[in-house]
Amino acid sequence: MATDILVLNGPNLNLLGKRQPEIYGHETIADVERSCRSVAREYGLTIDFRQSNDEAQLIDWIHQARDQHASIVINPAGYSHTSVALMDALSAFPGHIIEVHISNIHRRESFRHLSYVSKVATGVICGLGTAGYHLAVHHLACHLKK
Amino acid sequence: MATDILVLNGPNLNLLGKRQPEIYGHETIADVERSCRSVAREYGLTIDFRQSNDEAQLIDWIHQARDQHASIVINPAGYSHTSVALMDALSAFPGHIIEVHISNIHRRESFRHLSYVSKVATGVICGLGTAGYHLAVHHLACHLKK
Amino acid sequence: MATDILVLNGPNLNLLGKRQPEIYGHETIADVERSCRSVAREYGLTIDFRQSNDEAQLIDWIHQARDQHASIVINPAGYSHTSVALMDALSAFPGHIIEVHISNIHRRESFRHLSYVSKVATGVICGLGTAGYHLAVHHLACHLKK
Amino acid sequence: MATDILVLNGPNLNLLGKRQPEIYGHETIADVERSCRSVAREYGLTIDFRQSNDEAQLIDWIHQARDQHASIVINPAGYSHTSVALMDALSAFPGHIIEVHISNIHRRESFRHLSYVSKVATGVICGLGTAGYHLAVHHLACHLKK
Amino acid sequence: MATDILVLNGPNLNLLGKRQPEIYGHETIADVERSCRSVAREYGLTIDFRQSNDEAQLIDWIHQARDQHASIVINPAGYSHTSVALMDALSAFPGHIIEVHISNIHRRESFRHLSYVSKVATGVICGLGTAGYHLAVHHLACHLKK
Amino acid sequence: MATDILVLNGPNLNLLGKRQPEIYGHETIADVERSCRSVAREYGLTIDFRQSNDEAQLIDWIHQARDQHASIVINPAGYSHTSVALMDALSAFPGHIIEVHISNIHRRESFRHLSYVSKVATGVICGLGTAGYHLAVHHLACHLKK
Amino acid sequence: MATDILVLNGPNLNLLGKRQPEIYGHETIADVERSCRSVAREYGLTIDFRQSNDEAQLIDWIHQARDQHASIVINPAGYSHTSVALMDALSAFPGHIIEVHISNIHRRESFRHLSYVSKVATGVICGLGTAGYHLAVHHLACHLKK
Amino acid sequence: MATDILVLNGPNLNLLGKRQPEIYGHETIADVERSCRSVAREYGLTIDFRQSNDEAQLIDWIHQARDQHASIVINPAGYSHTSVALMDALSAFPGHIIEVHISNIHRRESFRHLSYVSKVATGVICGLGTAGYHLAVHHLACHLKK
Amino acid sequence: MATDILVLNGPNLNLLGKRQPEIYGHETIADVERSCRSVAREYGLTIDFRQSNDEAQLIDWIHQARDQHASIVINPAGYSHTSVALMDALSAFPGHIIEVHISNIHRRESFRHLSYVSKVATGVICGLGTAGYHLAVHHLACHLKK
Amino acid sequence: MATDILVLNGPNLNLLGKRQPEIYGHETIADVERSCRSVAREYGLTIDFRQSNDEAQLIDWIHQARDQHASIVINPAGYSHTSVALMDALSAFPGHIIEVHISNIHRRESFRHLSYVSKVATGVICGLGTAGYHLAVHHLACHLKK
Amino acid sequence: MATDILVLNGPNLNLLGKRQPEIYGHETIADVERSCRSVAREYGLTIDFRQSNDEAQLIDWIHQARDQHASIVINPAGYSHTSVALMDALSAFPGHIIEVHISNIHRRESFRHLSYVSKVATGVICGLGTAGYHLAVHHLACHLKK
Amino acid sequence: MATDILVLNGPNLNLLGKRQPEIYGHETIADVERSCRSVAREYGLTIDFRQSNDEAQLIDWIHQARDQHASIVINPAGYSHTSVALMDALSAFPGHIIEVHISNIHRRESFRHLSYVSKVATGVICGLGTAGYHLAVHHLACHLKK
Repeated sequence: MATDILVLNGPNLNLLGKRQPEIYGHETIADVERSCRSVAREYGLTIDFRQSNDEAQLIDWIHQARDQHASIVINPAGYSHTSVALMDALSAFPGHIIEVHISNIHRRESFRHLSYVSKVATGVICGLGTAGYHLAVHHLACHLKK
Repeated sequence: MATDILVLNGPNLNLLGKRQPEIYGHETIADVERSCRSVAREYGLTIDFRQSNDEAQLIDWIHQARDQHASIVINPAGYSHTSVALMDALSAFPGHIIEVHISNIHRRESFRHLSYVSKVATGVICGLGTAGYHLAVHHLACHLKK
Repeated sequence: MATDILVLNGPNLNLLGKRQPEIYGHETIADVERSCRSVAREYGLTIDFRQSNDEAQLIDWIHQARDQHASIVINPAGYSHTSVALMDALSAFPGHIIEVHISNIHRRESFRHLSYVSKVATGVICGLGTAGYHLAVHHLACHLKK
Repeated sequence: MATDILVLNGPNLNLLGKRQPEIYGHETIADVERSCRSVAREYGLTIDFRQSNDEAQLIDWIHQARDQHASIVINPAGYSHTSVALMDALSAFPGHIIEVHISNIHRRESFRHLSYVSKVATGVICGLGTAGYHLAVHHLACHLKK
Repeated sequence: MATDILVLNGPNLNLLGKRQPEIYGHETIADVERSCRSVAREYGLTIDFRQSNDEAQLIDWIHQARDQHASIVINPAGYSHTSVALMDALSAFPGHIIEVHISNIHRRESFRHLSYVSKVATGVICGLGTAGYHLAVHHLACHLKK
Repeated sequence: MATDILVLNGPNLNLLGKRQPEIYGHETIADVERSCRSVAREYGLTIDFRQSNDEAQLIDWIHQARDQHASIVINPAGYSHTSVALMDALSAFPGHIIEVHISNIHRRESFRHLSYVSKVATGVICGLGTAGYHLAVHHLACHLKK
Repeated sequence: MATDILVLNGPNLNLLGKRQPEIYGHETIADVERSCRSVAREYGLTIDFRQSNDEAQLIDWIHQARDQHASIVINPAGYSHTSVALMDALSAFPGHIIEVHISNIHRRESFRHLSYVSKVATGVICGLGTAGYHLAVHHLACHLKK
Repeated sequence: MATDILVLNGPNLNLLGKRQPEIYGHETIADVERSCRSVAREYGLTIDFRQSNDEAQLIDWIHQARDQHASIVINPAGYSHTSVALMDALSAFPGHIIEVHISNIHRRESFRHLSYVSKVATGVICGLGTAGYHLAVHHLACHLKK
Repeated sequence: MATDILVLNGPNLNLLGKRQPEIYGHETIADVERSCRSVAREYGLTIDFRQSNDEAQLIDWIHQARDQHASIVINPAGYSHTSVALMDALSAFPGHIIEVHISNIHRRESFRHLSYVSKVATGVICGLGTAGYHLAVHHLACHLKK
Repeated sequence: MATDILVLNGPNLNLLGKRQPEIYGHETIADVERSCRSVAREYGLTIDFRQSNDEAQLIDWIHQARDQHASIVINPAGYSHTSVALMDALSAFPGHIIEVHISNIHRRESFRHLSYVSKVATGVICGLGTAGYHLAVHHLACHLKK
Repeated sequence: MATDILVLNGPNLNLLGKRQPEIYGHETIADVERSCRSVAREYGLTIDFRQSNDEAQLIDWIHQARDQHASIVINPAGYSHTSVALMDALSAFPGHIIEVHISNIHRRESFRHLSYVSKVATGVICGLGTAGYHLAVHHLACHLKK
Repeated sequence: MATDILVLNGPNLNLLGKRQPEIYGHETIADVERSCRSVAREYGLTIDFRQSNDEAQLIDWIHQARDQHASIVINPAGYSHTSVALMDALSAFPGHIIEVHISNIHRRESFRHLSYVSKVATGVICGLGTAGYHLAVHHLACHLKK
């Protein structure tokens, strides 16, 4: 295994902390990576942390994860609601998948209420800010250790 | 404050561990209470843990929580999808509200995809089994300490 | 007849004046009771004024009203939109039924636009604040006197 | 101000008392005007009472009302359900607007359940017969006096 | 009775024969009036034939028809699909009402498939060109003579 | 050509005059045949008049009509709303097709508002009782003679 | 009367016991006929028991039943969900009609949840296996005897 | 086992025989209990017969039934159409569940066509009046005896 | 030709600059006329600029435009979303038609997202404030000159 | 086995080559039979080739096929979109079923996009003209030989 | 022409044979390429066989195909249901396009029933496993040779 | 600032002038670039003009535009209707955004009527051919100069 956990971030998350802080907060994606690593380290786990605006890149990483990572944490952002291809890629991943959304998507526009990814994820955490990533890592840590 | 966190469980959760273990697992509601308390204790927090099949009882507890608890963790079970009254009660609660579902409701019947509670909750955790409660307590602990 | 009019209040109305004053105003449910009584007294009418968060309690009161009250004024709150049982109970009441909503439900979320109660009520008053109750009593007074 | 209250009646209300008395009762529009004036007089208020089958005429009157009337009582009849133009005209009126329907529109055909006017009115009174007009005047009287 | 039959034509029918002849044919509205009169005369009936682009004018004519005409033939054109007010006016007319459409509205855009007028008309003739008017007059003639 | 016009009657029309006379009137299918023949004879036309409860039989007759009849008058009854096969058969008929309904289908249950047959018919006559057949024959007579 | 009860079976029921026994059980249609007769005999009633895959045949039998049978028990199978013609035939039957489905159609595909036949049947029994037929006969027996 | 069969009645059924007899007949709930007991006795079975307007009470009784009753007959009345919680409670019951409706819900308002309970019931009997209860008991008797 | 371009303004646009300036800005309809004339003059074009709250008046003007104007710029305001009659009138106009909306209708209530006029207009400009009119004139100028 | 493959053709396919050649081409059903036989012969397979406009006849043939044919190729034509009964018959056939449509149904009216048959067919070939039949036979040949 | 046929494979098809073999079988994408080549060679045709998870890459290849390939065989996988851009690219390709799906998409989740690609493809083959590709090549071979 | 305006073109626009000229005209994308530059130069503005079929590339360019361009003109083509990710990227851009469509999307297939981009654009210009780009530049020029 390359690392225990692969953390994937979808489109526009590279702008985190730079746009709509009233929705997404002030932390940058680098901050999130740093804090995720720190949480993982507490549990003696390693993580890979990536972001891409490219649907195909995300799919490729998920394919590679089949051999290289035990679990996936994914914030699919805008692709959550529109990408059957991403959903299909994830459905071929044998490990746990935790979907994270920084904002509570159920309080936003109705087209954000449906996530194709939720249909194949193990579980979903949304609305808890970037702490949602930490909870996901925390949860997988407990799982992986068992 | 009576306790830091009020953990509310909706209808049929008293049967936890006794029905459909392939969906809800083998832990009983008492097991969940015990483990929640233990997680809370780690953070020096106190919790109230309650279950009711009665919509009105849940609403009353939420009303009382306005004066007695800093945060609510709620698994509204079947009422998630049908109770505007419960949603209205929660919308009058000033603290954080975390909605927890043991199963991933997005993988089940379509009428379980909508939760009125999600529209007023701070965030939602679903599909992570009873560990979802622990993550919720864990998250509030970090929040309350700040 | 126990009293001329039964005024029923549904879930969360016990919080009136304590939550979302920008929607519901600053009067408490006790204030509303007091002013309703005062309006009723002007017309020489007696009222019973009750509130419950419990759907079954509301149904029971409506059943009893068949023998004890000439008319019903009801603010079904959150149950307006979800309770066929409440609608069925009201449909068995032989007198006038006036449905009151403090806020204008047609300006709020779309799931508040449908009221099952409206399908069996004589009439509906909404959006006029707690004065809606007074108008209802006023209207029934004119009716009962005829 | 020309008068305190402008009472507007939409299409077909000139036939009031002449058609479908089982739905609309036996009073004519002239009867309604007379009784409205009488209620207004009790409160020392003046009213203008008009009826038109013409959507544009109704819109023009609403525009003029901006300078000439403190409040509007409107029974938009058939235009309630189809006129965005009427809704837009009313949304530009700064005073209170009370929508009145003689019949309970929620007990009739489903296309009568939606009223564009309700989305901009202060409140709505329906199903209480022509007394709905009196209640509206009564309510505005209390308001205007404050 | 002013005349036996009132023939009403809705918006844009003044352009008949001048626009979209592939849908509406080459006859003008004056041609239709002439041929309707001729058919009526065969049966010893008199007709009034009118056209207006104005919804309110059509409603007024229908109101007057209550005292002046035994039957109505109406081609409500674009208002068929959008005017509850027109439907309400027709529902107050005690005689027979035949709705005519020159084109077959069921072969056109889906928003033309619903006609509010059809819900209150005695019957509907569509797709038979301007001959639809003649059939309507013919039918009423047989009816009126009985 | 076998005859000028083929008049087809769909399922349950053999019961005409025997069931729900408040909807369909008191004439029997034999009465309708007789009166249709009489109208046709006036114009020097011949008709074939048939009824079947069998969708396939109706389709077969329509196929044969391609060589044997100039026009079709069809009351597809219950198959109007459910038979794409019937619609397809009619779309292969080169002559005029007039769809007749005895009752006004737009005033009945909503599933009767859609007719597949209307999408391929030349025109539609509904709600004028069995006279609708006569009007159809009358109309085709005028057409065929031209 | 030919017999007291006509038991009708729709398409594919001739395969009963031969296909999908996990849904429909192991009894054949002949078994069902035999047991129905036996139940009827207990009550001194006679039955006619028929099956057809042909919608028109079923309609014809229902028409004939008007003169020959006091009641109908019908399992319309696949035609339940698609046949307005069958519904219309049944609506012309003056006696009791009991609709039976062997499986619980509400637990199957959503297009099986609507039955046109239910809109004209006296009552419906579904999900109780072939015993549903016996209950229907039993029920009619009690009714017919009264 | 406390008794062989638990018969549960939902909201407003305590009014049976007292309201809308044209829909529900003249028998009271006590009459139904008496006749059910009598049918049960014929088969040597014991029944518990209960009614509540309280959703939570119904859920509690269903939970207790897991240990105390072999089968459930339930008329969920208004809760049929709105209660996921009730459905979830029933889905945890291991024995047979027969849903009974006195009226044929498919002939009434469209919101009564869906029953959540039907999705977990063994079978459904509707429209056969209070005899539906007897048929249910009768059916379970035959089952329990096997 | 009377003028090169006819600029039509629908209901409530006479209030421009007087209501909801946060949506529609501070310019009055007279300001818009002035600036449109000025833009037209730059290109040596003449314009007619009109406003009416009356659907029939707008239709009449469009009919007249067939002989008198080469192109139409229209802001149909509230009638955009509800008037098939207006759409039909425009579809009979042989020249270019540009639909203008001052606000971006796709960011407002969902019933403003559909415009019947868009189905027959050459093109649509929305959300660019009153400059949308200038762009329309500008565009037609370039077109007319060719 | 009577033959290896049963080729079934639904309603109106007897007209193939005679109607709408722009959609269905110029080959007749006899041409298709001939070419299918020829393809089958290449692979040493025998076929039965039938056409019926009668839903019940198609169902009967499918039932018989259970004992007599290894595979079915079916072009259900208009019944594809409306026949649950046909779907149920096919679901009881144990061999391979290939659904063929001559035209690409996804490019036609929206009611042709759903095929009940597709839900039980092994696979579907559409839009490839009558060659679709050949491909189906070709495919089964390869399968049957294995 | 570069080659006669371009075979395109969309997202996740690189995993063919590695994931969900119960749906997609055991062949890898390399196996499919090999067998396609072999079928093409039989007919003396050349093929290009490509796979990409990247929507833009697929679009680019389709653009290039305009000059380089006579026909396209495409399995758009997850993009079938979500990509208007892909559909638009294909609509600009002048040759034949055959859409292939390995599984029968009509038996899977409802969001897989719609394919934008089907709206511009010549034809569609689904549910026949990887043999669908061979049939497509086979079909084009027969076409190209003509 | 790199340039004043960034002009972005989505998928398939590289084919402009080469496909469907009846919809999109004969100009190529290079022609559009040239004419846009020329319009910009008139106003002393600089533009960047780009096209990509790649959703991620478009998102990246929009992100970069935050620091480098004052305004965006975007023709999102097929991504308009399907890309929440693109919408989210644009919502993070602080300057003006004008959406341009060459064709009038409201006259085309219904899935082209919704544009996610319209929900975040300042305004939309559609149906005016490539002149829509010029109008957009023209409009921004007037804005930027202010």
